[in-house]
Amino acid sequence: MTQRKVKAAVLLIGDELLSGRTQDINLQAIAKYLAPLGVQVAEARIVADTPDEIIAAVNALRVKYDYVFTTGGIGPTHDDKTADAVAAAFGVNIDVREDARAILEAHYKGRTSLNESRLRMARIPDGASLIANPVSKAPGFQLGNVFVMAGVPSITRGMLQDIGHRLEGGAVVRARTIRAKGVPEGDIADDLGALEQATNGVVSFGSYPWFTPEGFGVHLVARSADAAALEKAIADLSALVRARGAEPEEVGDAA
Amino acid sequence: MTQRKVKAAVLLIGDELLSGRTQDINLQAIAKYLAPLGVQVAEARIVADTPDEIIAAVNALRVKYDYVFTTGGIGPTHDDKTADAVAAAFGVNIDVREDARAILEAHYKGRTSLNESRLRMARIPDGASLIANPVSKAPGFQLGNVFVMAGVPSITRGMLQDIGHRLEGGAVVRARTIRAKGVPEGDIADDLGALEQATNGVVSFGSYPWFTPEGFGVHLVARSADAAALEKAIADLSALVRARGAEPEEVGDAA
Repeated sequence: MTQRKVKAAVLLIGDELLSGRTQDINLQAIAKYLAPLGVQVAEARIVADTPDEIIAAVNALRVKYDYVFTTGGIGPTHDDKTADAVAAAFGVNIDVREDARAILEAHYKGRTSLNESRLRMARIPDGASLIANPVSKAPGFQLGNVFVMAGVPSITRGMLQDIGHRLEGGAVVRARTIRAKGVPEGDIADDLGALEQATNGVVSFGSYPWFTPEGFGVHLVARSADAAALEKAIADLSALVRARGAEPEEVGDAA
Repeated sequence: MTQRKVKAAVLLIGDELLSGRTQDINLQAIAKYLAPLGVQVAEARIVADTPDEIIAAVNALRVKYDYVFTTGGIGPTHDDKTADAVAAAFGVNIDVREDARAILEAHYKGRTSLNESRLRMARIPDGASLIANPVSKAPGFQLGNVFVMAGVPSITRGMLQDIGHRLEGGAVVRARTIRAKGVPEGDIADDLGALEQATNGVVSFGSYPWFTPEGFGVHLVARSADAAALEKAIADLSALVRARGAEPEEVGDAA
């Protein structure tokens, strides 16, 4: 049975990502989290903390893909604009909501004040459901097919745990990798293209050259939702490598 | 004299960036390279090695921004589709071009064959100018306001060196950072918002909380094209921090 492909977009929000101040690491974490659930990231965008930009991106992505995951902009400061922008994108109201407020009150009780800034983190769009934040308590939220998370990587990771069970995944695409030391990428490229053609789109192949002081080579990656086709692909790749006088080595942790 | 803002988009191309296999580090490098030249990255997108996706993104971004920088997809393999896609986006022809071919021939002479796959790297859209690749010779190219570079980070960095002189930058936005140990982000947020309002858009402020085993705090970043306004902003931020019983410390390497 061929399962459908379930696709997602990731929207990373933050001036600091565009200025170069901060290196994003959330996209990779989200993609790796979603893959075994049968959800593939098909596109990502990085926008500034600007309401118009966030609204336009959210609206473009939520109709194009099954799911949208956003990071950033739900903290307590004036430049945290995501919650209001997402509400505007959906055309719904947003205000401080009791359930979110209660979570923050419990978290800050006896330690510090729930001032006007912190209360911003309790602003939840009408109709949204909360996403638990096991790290610092201020919740994310889901509105329609859009999941709004914090940008601090440890918190993003924590919020993902409350997201997985909400998703209906499709075909799980797996990747397997052959490492070929000493084989130049250009040598093997013609055959790789022919291999992919022969599978009629069932398997996709990629080659990633590497260079180290100890030598060079290429990683050949085969990706497919069809395990049998993937097994054949690995055999074919290994044969290509041996034909060039090198020894193929399957390596793990492929994405 | 108020200079205009020159804005750029970065388009990162590669299945491996969306699958989670590869962590992009080019966006940060490009943003940091462009900032002192007076070019600000205003948006970034990450798309797959799919011609339609690349074409749509290139066309959307090149009319919206002054410059577009792409990475990835100009290698020798079948999944390197960027050059042809960019040509299609501009509606121009693409073929192996003599100047690019000559570079590759000289590079591979006596070492290995300039086979069909490697020759793909000499495919240059009509009207494009070449961008030098000091690392591995296969050139990038500029077509209109779009600069097409390789995705391997060392090569991207090398290609940037032949790009800077082609750009007409605008106002240079500088950032300065105050580190405030022990100040919770939520405490200072209200005042930060007020500070930004008071500058009427001349200075933008961001706060980035940090947590380490040794303690916590916040980095307060002020960004502006107006050096005098920036100096005042640093003084104001320092006052805010002292008012909370902490010692402000200006730290370097801000973006």
